[in-house]
Amino acid sequence: MDMKETRISGELIYDGIIVHLYKDKVSLPNGNEAVREVIRHQGAVCVVAVDDDKNIYLVRQFRYPFNDVITEIPAGKLDAGETPIEGAARELREETGIIAKNYKYLGELYTSCAFLDEVIHMYLATDLSFTEQNPDEDEFVEVDKVNLKEFVSEIMEGKVPDSKTQTAVLKAYIELGNLC
Amino acid sequence: MDMKETRISGELIYDGIIVHLYKDKVSLPNGNEAVREVIRHQGAVCVVAVDDDKNIYLVRQFRYPFNDVITEIPAGKLDAGETPIEGAARELREETGIIAKNYKYLGELYTSCAFLDEVIHMYLATDLSFTEQNPDEDEFVEVDKVNLKEFVSEIMEGKVPDSKTQTAVLKAYIELGNLC
Repeated sequence: MDMKETRISGELIYDGIIVHLYKDKVSLPNGNEAVREVIRHQGAVCVVAVDDDKNIYLVRQFRYPFNDVITEIPAGKLDAGETPIEGAARELREETGIIAKNYKYLGELYTSCAFLDEVIHMYLATDLSFTEQNPDEDEFVEVDKVNLKEFVSEIMEGKVPDSKTQTAVLKAYIELGNLC
Repeated sequence: MDMKETRISGELIYDGIIVHLYKDKVSLPNGNEAVREVIRHQGAVCVVAVDDDKNIYLVRQFRYPFNDVITEIPAGKLDAGETPIEGAARELREETGIIAKNYKYLGELYTSCAFLDEVIHMYLATDLSFTEQNPDEDEFVEVDKVNLKEFVSEIMEGKVPDSKTQTAVLKAYIELGNLC
């Protein structure tokens, strides 16, 4: 089946700090026209850091869209010119103070592919050492250490809504040999 | 730690079909001010439909932000006034023709909680019967049937980037008794 949509025209609606919003007119496979709202994003990374005692390191921070404190794995936007693995190591150290010797790639995550091009690169980090936490002045982040198996149970019980956290932790848990 | 951010003022930047973009000024816990770009979304549902032979039903469609055909589980936006379970049953039937007798809730997914309030409700659907596919005129969706275990392997190999698909399928697979 021909599925391709071809861009006819477009305009930049808003060019912000995180959000870059475009409104494009496209041609559909049946010849009809449609409007596509697209948010362009610079990409991000996230890290499942697991220590030798099978604990995972989590961050809790206020997330304005939900007006609530959300539990997540360490994560952040890629800086310009930075590779995903460099961004992962930087974010992990800034948010938790952790340095990891081993990184295993867990693949890409398209957060909401219908209207947003954000890609999050996911990593499992092991062989950890611990230094000082080093957040930005206007970042308010609490770090928590939780048993990995108990945290997987919390995910399964629906207590951990964040998408990158659910996906990357379940993949890391399977990667660490817990599937039959 | 006090983490709460308080809204000082805000403006509606763009009120679109899917995307409703706001730019708010907030007060941080340390008294500083910051800008928060927030996309408001009406919410969505997705369904992991598994038949008696342990096959999963997938949809492939062109996703404009990635200029590519993406493999996903059946999913869609909630209609006004619709409950999540009603939306799940409607989307599954529209996109694949499948009617399911049993639905198990797999929890919420916050797709990108830093700047987007989208919530996707995830379901595992079993005890399936099959009718005609009934897509909208301007929807171009291919349905595919794949062995669930093989699809989980594809997810683990990084071949399935969509976030709701990775999360919901891994949760469904664990829910069906495949974790040690």
